[in-house]
Amino acid sequence: MTTSHDVQVSVLGLGAMGSALATALVKAGHATTVWNRSPGRTSDLVAQGATAAGTAGDAVRASRLVIACLLDHASVHEVLDPLSGELGGRTLVNVTTTTPAQARELAAWAADAGVTYLDGGIMAIPPMIGQPGSSVLYSGSATAFDQYKPLLDLWGASTYFGADPGLASLYDLALLAGMYVMFAGFMHGAAMLAPEGVSAGEFAAMAAPWLTAMTGAFGEFATVIDGGDYTVDGQQSLDFSDLGDIVAASADQGIDTGAVAMVQQLIRRQIDAGHGQEGFARIIESIKQPS
Amino acid sequence: MTTSHDVQVSVLGLGAMGSALATALVKAGHATTVWNRSPGRTSDLVAQGATAAGTAGDAVRASRLVIACLLDHASVHEVLDPLSGELGGRTLVNVTTTTPAQARELAAWAADAGVTYLDGGIMAIPPMIGQPGSSVLYSGSATAFDQYKPLLDLWGASTYFGADPGLASLYDLALLAGMYVMFAGFMHGAAMLAPEGVSAGEFAAMAAPWLTAMTGAFGEFATVIDGGDYTVDGQQSLDFSDLGDIVAASADQGIDTGAVAMVQQLIRRQIDAGHGQEGFARIIESIKQPS
Repeated sequence: MTTSHDVQVSVLGLGAMGSALATALVKAGHATTVWNRSPGRTSDLVAQGATAAGTAGDAVRASRLVIACLLDHASVHEVLDPLSGELGGRTLVNVTTTTPAQARELAAWAADAGVTYLDGGIMAIPPMIGQPGSSVLYSGSATAFDQYKPLLDLWGASTYFGADPGLASLYDLALLAGMYVMFAGFMHGAAMLAPEGVSAGEFAAMAAPWLTAMTGAFGEFATVIDGGDYTVDGQQSLDFSDLGDIVAASADQGIDTGAVAMVQQLIRRQIDAGHGQEGFARIIESIKQPS
Repeated sequence: MTTSHDVQVSVLGLGAMGSALATALVKAGHATTVWNRSPGRTSDLVAQGATAAGTAGDAVRASRLVIACLLDHASVHEVLDPLSGELGGRTLVNVTTTTPAQARELAAWAADAGVTYLDGGIMAIPPMIGQPGSSVLYSGSATAFDQYKPLLDLWGASTYFGADPGLASLYDLALLAGMYVMFAGFMHGAAMLAPEGVSAGEFAAMAAPWLTAMTGAFGEFATVIDGGDYTVDGQQSLDFSDLGDIVAASADQGIDTGAVAMVQQLIRRQIDAGHGQEGFARIIESIKQPS
């Protein structure tokens, strides 16, 4: 078991997130080497005890554990393709935002180069790193996850989803999808009330506890979905869930109806297919099977 | 001040919600008269101590306070139009689901008939009535709200929004819009993961706490929106919020992209208008001004 303070680690990429990750490592006493493509990002970290590398190659050679937190998938290849020889035998933890397909592609590239690959998806914004509520999702090499978990836990709660290197990214994007869609729903409600002089702050004070309470329905929906029978008793039916009133009231307020019309369309497709008496959870079938 | 146990009250409409409301009144010791258009719904309530009325007119004449919980706005007019004379001088609390425009129309009708009108929007499902977490929103007559608040509180936390009879309904629909859109976001995330063998239950266990935590952003968005300046520091920019990866990963999974494409469109409209460096909260402008 590696203890928390004897790991040599290099961080490639010092944007807001990379800097936050490196700062957490330095503060925990790890020998941390940092590199950024454009200069001038290293001084704060060096002042805290990090070592600045002049090139990405110097950074890779400095540590057995290399963290990549770059702009995007293309940047990872640009920086690491010329260094595949040096990376061989080391562990790469890539927390750059990628799609599942890109994570799998990079894992295959790493395997060819003899690199142990762990993909990470960060469920936090930079100021949250190392704070309660920060969470990082991982998939790929179980060996790497087990070996470095004490270090990874410095950034937030670490969860490992399995050997498929694309799974962490897919979970990450699925949770972000839920978040962005929820944000649009909040904005839609605030926009409905704005013409009556209700501030967004007044609506937020009601919407945050309301939506928090309503997340309690996810588990009930999931039980129905995983059970595979949308006809079970005690559910709100799709017929009852018609959003016509909400769409009409939104139009009356002079606002864009897109957010609620999207949900209405998911509902209507199931009703039109003859499932109106079945439970609301059935709208997932509209998503699983594109029209 | 009216105390909780000396109010004579009539409930029109004994669907699942009307029955739950009447049950709470009977249990609290109120002299409760109940009526339903189709017979056979009153026996349980009568067994608990309610009085069944043979006609809606009998029910109206029995009490100074009349609760309407009918199928829809048209049903309210069908039942009450012939009884406008009898209703004069009484208080009507209408918790039938209506649009704000319908609530305002019914309030005007009530004013013409000399009826004190309070409109209510119930933020609960029938089994929640009288339980923690149940909430009912009111607007219209402040006199009626103040007089009957102890009785209304039997159903859940009562909040009064002002004299505009449409405001409770508008708040109700705005909160429901947020809920339904959030539900679609949850379903979208679950559908993204399903092809990899991840159950909806596994996703729900992560999505519920994640989205609960992310409701913490509503207040920050609201501060920016109400402040009217989307350029303030410390926000995630619209350029950074591009959902291209999520849309692409959803398409790769073979699912409908409608939910995330809806949000992407709200973001893109602001970027296209030159606001890409401004904060994410600016997507509300895409909703406030339909394309």
